[in-house]
Amino acid sequence: MQDKQLLLIPGPTPVPPSVLRACAKPMVNHRGPEYMAMQRQLERDLAEIFQTKNYVAILTASGTGGLEAAIVNFLSPGDKVLSVSIGSFGDRFATIAKAFGANVEKLEFEWGQPADPALLAARLAEDRSKEIKAVLLTHNETSTGVTNDVKALAAVVREHGALVMVDSVSGLVALDLQTDNWGLDVVVAASQKAFMTPPGLSFISASERAWAAMANATMPRVYWSLERAKEFSEKGQTPWTPAVTLMYGLEVGIAMIKQEGLQNVFARHRRLGTMARAAIKAMGLTLLAEHAQASNAVTAIRCPEGLTSKQIRAKVQEKYGVVLAGGQGKLTDSIFRIGHLGFVDETDILTAVNCIGLTLESMGVPVDVAAGMEAARKAQG
Amino acid sequence: MQDKQLLLIPGPTPVPPSVLRACAKPMVNHRGPEYMAMQRQLERDLAEIFQTKNYVAILTASGTGGLEAAIVNFLSPGDKVLSVSIGSFGDRFATIAKAFGANVEKLEFEWGQPADPALLAARLAEDRSKEIKAVLLTHNETSTGVTNDVKALAAVVREHGALVMVDSVSGLVALDLQTDNWGLDVVVAASQKAFMTPPGLSFISASERAWAAMANATMPRVYWSLERAKEFSEKGQTPWTPAVTLMYGLEVGIAMIKQEGLQNVFARHRRLGTMARAAIKAMGLTLLAEHAQASNAVTAIRCPEGLTSKQIRAKVQEKYGVVLAGGQGKLTDSIFRIGHLGFVDETDILTAVNCIGLTLESMGVPVDVAAGMEAARKAQG
Repeated sequence: MQDKQLLLIPGPTPVPPSVLRACAKPMVNHRGPEYMAMQRQLERDLAEIFQTKNYVAILTASGTGGLEAAIVNFLSPGDKVLSVSIGSFGDRFATIAKAFGANVEKLEFEWGQPADPALLAARLAEDRSKEIKAVLLTHNETSTGVTNDVKALAAVVREHGALVMVDSVSGLVALDLQTDNWGLDVVVAASQKAFMTPPGLSFISASERAWAAMANATMPRVYWSLERAKEFSEKGQTPWTPAVTLMYGLEVGIAMIKQEGLQNVFARHRRLGTMARAAIKAMGLTLLAEHAQASNAVTAIRCPEGLTSKQIRAKVQEKYGVVLAGGQGKLTDSIFRIGHLGFVDETDILTAVNCIGLTLESMGVPVDVAAGMEAARKAQG
Repeated sequence: MQDKQLLLIPGPTPVPPSVLRACAKPMVNHRGPEYMAMQRQLERDLAEIFQTKNYVAILTASGTGGLEAAIVNFLSPGDKVLSVSIGSFGDRFATIAKAFGANVEKLEFEWGQPADPALLAARLAEDRSKEIKAVLLTHNETSTGVTNDVKALAAVVREHGALVMVDSVSGLVALDLQTDNWGLDVVVAASQKAFMTPPGLSFISASERAWAAMANATMPRVYWSLERAKEFSEKGQTPWTPAVTLMYGLEVGIAMIKQEGLQNVFARHRRLGTMARAAIKAMGLTLLAEHAQASNAVTAIRCPEGLTSKQIRAKVQEKYGVVLAGGQGKLTDSIFRIGHLGFVDETDILTAVNCIGLTLESMGVPVDVAAGMEAARKAQG
């Protein structure tokens, strides 16, 4: 049925009707007073959500643009960078650093596993001459459904002294991230995840240490220049024309987050993740991440023997209108993922696991749908 | 009165209600079939509007991002680039090339004047060793309201052999630009100008010669990589999450352009420009560009003695709700500009010149409003 869909991919996430309506407000002058008041308020709200006292810049770009901004504003070609990767978005962060001439060393963990702070500490301890200028971390690895212990990882890096750069594109708002308390120097997020806003905006915060590093950072930057962004931010503007209508939407998305309360938003995502994992396991399916750091924003499920991700997702969408995500990189065919971040509630999880179960049953997979549903209801509490 | 505004700045331009409504459609999977069909159609339509047979990439960024993409995809650090500048956007294009390590030589013309093809030809003739790899041109210089003769300038560059890179951010759709016929290697445009769509999308086309140059171009690029964009375009996707809702809007904006007919759109902008200039002169005010290459997308007016741009614009907005633009760079205080591109018609011009005239009269400037209105009506034909 046309337009009848339950979109459960880990971004772009479903956008609330009130946010969509806000995106349809008439255009204004991006150097005029109405606009400037909006940008100033959004920057204040973003700082609160980032849990930082520092300036948060709004870039017209999707998340990857924010990651590129993180690299080029604070580093120079030849700088040694340690990239901690647990999946395809960790790899992407490393790719960007390498493309801009950083000397990238990768500390890789098996896909489906979180990064081990002890191994990171061991590697950093070897770096006695403090060659490593920055450590790249992924908060929530969307491709595998794993959340890193950023607090512990960052503590290890702070001891060493390198900059801590965090890709929290699919983490922020869904999962707690305490930018200032945890000593995170650069944090990147984007509109189309738990902010419940259409894609096209990326957000980036920088600590005082990061701003100091910028003074000597020689990678080329114009569009991503945070110096220019800050200079214009002081007059309530952006250096380049901003995506005004997406910012209208963001205002409403943020108002919804504030209304629910950030801690309650985290708690809701914990419930959604717990429900999804409990149901999947009770049904007899296998999670990719069978550990305490499975993500509360996205759940990755191994495809049952003999079925590809594409086959399963096509069937679930065709029969029930539930849109799921496939795997990425080396897991493209072997996992499928339920995105449950942003404008998603418990009912959506019940629906998703039910439809997945019924579909797999119809495809001949021995799943216990009833047990799955019961586990989900119990986990809901 | 709240929300009662006539937005006449040269971007972001007023967005038609039907485009805004389209931007409020629900989110879909950016790797799913509905999305892919939309992207494919948009790319075909953009190629038609660019008047090219080549692929046109859609980037999630505003126009400056598109200019950065033009530089980094086709050039290497150290490459000699000749930047033809007639205003602040020409300067910006040069700034980007320089930031990425190009050896930039500027060929500057007085602000308010177009570039002289003969002087460009003379400079290129001196370059016997063909050191110059690219020439940067501005189609329509928004900051001064001047349109370059891109056809003539490009012909001169083609004779030399350098790549022709054109910033047509505020030109395309409002003014004729024949990408293939005129031999333009790289052309950049953006959504928030004559496409009548909110800001956040940039478009870029590249000729076969440009694609060949890309193979040896070593400037760093990830987010702006047209190789990646093309690779994903072949499956109807973008490498990074696209601004889906802005693309919904673009579909409707383009449908309106096709409905009116591209040649008729050019003719409308010619009428709007002719009306604006005739009225301003008949009123007794002075145009910045008193020549045949005054822009049909934006008109720049010198501030009468003793008044700044800011004072005039504030008064026109306060009294009549008409939003005008100030000057840029060295002309910030001394000119004001009427944007008349995109969703703008003859009635808007009549309103604008009337309100400007009445405001200046009330500020003690000796203007002949009646003569201005009559000239506008006559120019409308």
